[in-house]
Amino acid sequence: MSEIASCLDVKLDGDPSAVITGIGTLASSGRGDLAFLSNPIYASQLSSCEAGVVILHPDQAQSFDGNRLLCEDPYLCYAKISHWFDPVPDLLPEIAPSATVDPTAEIGDRVHLGPNVVIGANVQIGPGCRISANSTVGDNSVLGADCKIASNVAIYHGVRIGSCVTVHSGSVLGADGFGFAPDSSSGWQKISQLGGVCIGSNVEIGACTTIDRGAIEDTVIGDNVIIDNHVQIAHNARIGDNTAMAAYSGVAGSASLGKNCILAGGAHVVGHVDICDNVQLMAHTLITKDIKNPGSYSSASMPLMTTSKWRKNAVRVSQLNDIALRVKKLEQKQDLE
Amino acid sequence: MSEIASCLDVKLDGDPSAVITGIGTLASSGRGDLAFLSNPIYASQLSSCEAGVVILHPDQAQSFDGNRLLCEDPYLCYAKISHWFDPVPDLLPEIAPSATVDPTAEIGDRVHLGPNVVIGANVQIGPGCRISANSTVGDNSVLGADCKIASNVAIYHGVRIGSCVTVHSGSVLGADGFGFAPDSSSGWQKISQLGGVCIGSNVEIGACTTIDRGAIEDTVIGDNVIIDNHVQIAHNARIGDNTAMAAYSGVAGSASLGKNCILAGGAHVVGHVDICDNVQLMAHTLITKDIKNPGSYSSASMPLMTTSKWRKNAVRVSQLNDIALRVKKLEQKQDLE
Amino acid sequence: MSEIASCLDVKLDGDPSAVITGIGTLASSGRGDLAFLSNPIYASQLSSCEAGVVILHPDQAQSFDGNRLLCEDPYLCYAKISHWFDPVPDLLPEIAPSATVDPTAEIGDRVHLGPNVVIGANVQIGPGCRISANSTVGDNSVLGADCKIASNVAIYHGVRIGSCVTVHSGSVLGADGFGFAPDSSSGWQKISQLGGVCIGSNVEIGACTTIDRGAIEDTVIGDNVIIDNHVQIAHNARIGDNTAMAAYSGVAGSASLGKNCILAGGAHVVGHVDICDNVQLMAHTLITKDIKNPGSYSSASMPLMTTSKWRKNAVRVSQLNDIALRVKKLEQKQDLE
Repeated sequence: MSEIASCLDVKLDGDPSAVITGIGTLASSGRGDLAFLSNPIYASQLSSCEAGVVILHPDQAQSFDGNRLLCEDPYLCYAKISHWFDPVPDLLPEIAPSATVDPTAEIGDRVHLGPNVVIGANVQIGPGCRISANSTVGDNSVLGADCKIASNVAIYHGVRIGSCVTVHSGSVLGADGFGFAPDSSSGWQKISQLGGVCIGSNVEIGACTTIDRGAIEDTVIGDNVIIDNHVQIAHNARIGDNTAMAAYSGVAGSASLGKNCILAGGAHVVGHVDICDNVQLMAHTLITKDIKNPGSYSSASMPLMTTSKWRKNAVRVSQLNDIALRVKKLEQKQDLE
Repeated sequence: MSEIASCLDVKLDGDPSAVITGIGTLASSGRGDLAFLSNPIYASQLSSCEAGVVILHPDQAQSFDGNRLLCEDPYLCYAKISHWFDPVPDLLPEIAPSATVDPTAEIGDRVHLGPNVVIGANVQIGPGCRISANSTVGDNSVLGADCKIASNVAIYHGVRIGSCVTVHSGSVLGADGFGFAPDSSSGWQKISQLGGVCIGSNVEIGACTTIDRGAIEDTVIGDNVIIDNHVQIAHNARIGDNTAMAAYSGVAGSASLGKNCILAGGAHVVGHVDICDNVQLMAHTLITKDIKNPGSYSSASMPLMTTSKWRKNAVRVSQLNDIALRVKKLEQKQDLE
Repeated sequence: MSEIASCLDVKLDGDPSAVITGIGTLASSGRGDLAFLSNPIYASQLSSCEAGVVILHPDQAQSFDGNRLLCEDPYLCYAKISHWFDPVPDLLPEIAPSATVDPTAEIGDRVHLGPNVVIGANVQIGPGCRISANSTVGDNSVLGADCKIASNVAIYHGVRIGSCVTVHSGSVLGADGFGFAPDSSSGWQKISQLGGVCIGSNVEIGACTTIDRGAIEDTVIGDNVIIDNHVQIAHNARIGDNTAMAAYSGVAGSASLGKNCILAGGAHVVGHVDICDNVQLMAHTLITKDIKNPGSYSSASMPLMTTSKWRKNAVRVSQLNDIALRVKKLEQKQDLE
């Protein structure tokens, strides 16, 4: 335990020789487990908690009798220490016999290429990269050092990725942007998507997420961006550093998000719209014009109601302009009286 | 036909020797087809229906002159008999030469592993499982008997699946949950996702659907749960038995759905929210707080309007608090008069 | 340049011998680049534009001093010429040694099958088709001429595709529709999905998009349909010719879209609803009943507000029926006075 405390650089209040072998919740931890209290609604669980040690804010120290690690940000401390207890062994640096690697590709040191991985022409794979089974990397794409590509990921040609980037299964980087010109003779004339995708470092991309290639220039993702599952980033979008995008959120073509933004689930930004730094969008919000001031915004659906009550209110929404005009008329009449 | 009637345990009103070779709609069926009437709006099609036999509720028996199978729930009878007419032969119990199976994996009897399937260390594949081409199963994962995994499915390590579970193509089970602690020095500190995924039996999972692994404990899916395409189930969510989730529906981290719930398309539950048993959520609903009483709920968007009418009403919604206050003022003035 | 002008059949106003080697934006183009002006908000960039040639509407001709290609629809001209500058070489007509092709499959001339591609029994692959790495085509499916299937695509059995169809990575064609009958004994009784998928010609399908097979008859996609990423097309839906579906849009079971419709992002049509030709649905719209007249429709969320203002207005929406009744009462009282 003293090792944990010194690694986290936090104060240990308890037995330095106690042995911790795992992480648990306050409710489920046993003597060998480390737990943490971040959300105050769980503070009541401290009295019966059997964890070997609990990470706590100093203000909560008196609420737990056992070993304590005291720090200002217990959630961040838990995040840092969680990696110690990951039971998954790192993938070995080896190239599976069934991998197909173009002879012109450059594969760095300590790279793992799993079974059936396919690496195209002129691809550069940085040292320490681990690419799992059945993933593909198209011609001329570049991965920096220590990237982790899960199984069944499709990376198209001309995708440039920084270092320490994680991509989860089912995701697709560099598919064609949705670019078509209306054409009275054929319905739609496809526009060749000539740009690529450029992704910074320390980026995490969830499962079944898509980042399209640019039409002329690149689609650009900054550093330290975190992206959840089922996210859509359209052609020529630009995502600023440290921005977080939750599941089903998305940005349409040529839209941009600033730095340090947070998009909650299902928040969407339409095409050619710019969002400044430090903006939070609530779940299900649809952004149709620029946001120039930091802050929290919403255009989400109605508050929750029983469906029968919702039906009554929803029909009134379609009468709302009329209602507003009638209120104005009432006011005018009353003023005359 | 007598064979069908006895299998379904329903009354046959007609020629027991008629031969049925397929299923059709009321409008398209020919003499060799079985059709059914479930939705009463199609009852008018009975008079011109040429099906060899029609499954009907006894109340509708007089509306059709041909052979009839009479039962209380024609839709359920159709569902049961539909499997007889599936032309797709079962996959043969064989392991493709191009499959990569770790020597420590345990493969049950009658298992089909398609081309390029990859099975990790210590994996257990139950008897009768069929895993199609290019799918992957990570270390230590367990599949019960008779699971059917379509092509291009990614199952991570530490995923435990019951028996008779179907997973369609493009789906991802066990990717990392979206867990990060804000860190002023690096933007986001990733939290190792140490839990797994635990899925019951008789579960169906559609295409391009994601079920993330838990942060500390498992993400849990009950028995007889049915899940459509593009569904997101975040880390540590819990889905009760018999619950149905339509396309694009999802639950955020640590949220729970009770038993026998139905989420219509695009219905979302935010994190740490609990929904009790027997709740129905209408399409596009966003749930931000616990639901403790069974019933149907909605917070969906406005009713359908032409876009020009919608623009007029939508702007009024943003004035709604002001309008409500003005109505109150009018009432107060009138009361004074 | 004269070659470009004659190919596009437009008027060249400038030096016919200028050499163009790429496409750029108005802001970034250099002497060797072709640029275009379509959206008038970018017209101010013409004065400083350094492109070798700009495609312009004749009305804008005077705004640019350099070489000009004048045409009525600059965006369409750009779309047509964009293909000249695509640097990606076409895939060679060859079958990778690691591809698994059933001996009963018919493979046309000039077909490319990438590494680990799996082709089932009785499949027909038309001449000129290119199927990239790790994609699968199930038994009895048919692809017309010159289809382009990206890597990691799953095509199930019994899917019929016309010619010149593109499918991007991660997409799934022909997975089971979401069909289950409620069954008091087992929760849900699965309905075998006996239909297939029938897709026209010149169709583009984005990444991570799903088109389910029909329950009895086929799911049908017309000609010249363009479909973005993360789109859901449920069993027995019908999509008319030339219709465009943006990211996250979808249609539920047995719904139909007419010809020349446009669904913006996240627009959804519920089951068994018919939309006529020439309908546009705004982003986030939910359609719950038939649309019989062409035009633009919306039921989207509220207009954008700060979250604090949104909270005040949203709670009023749940009081809206009450507010409307109070306005009516005020009007009646006033009429009496």
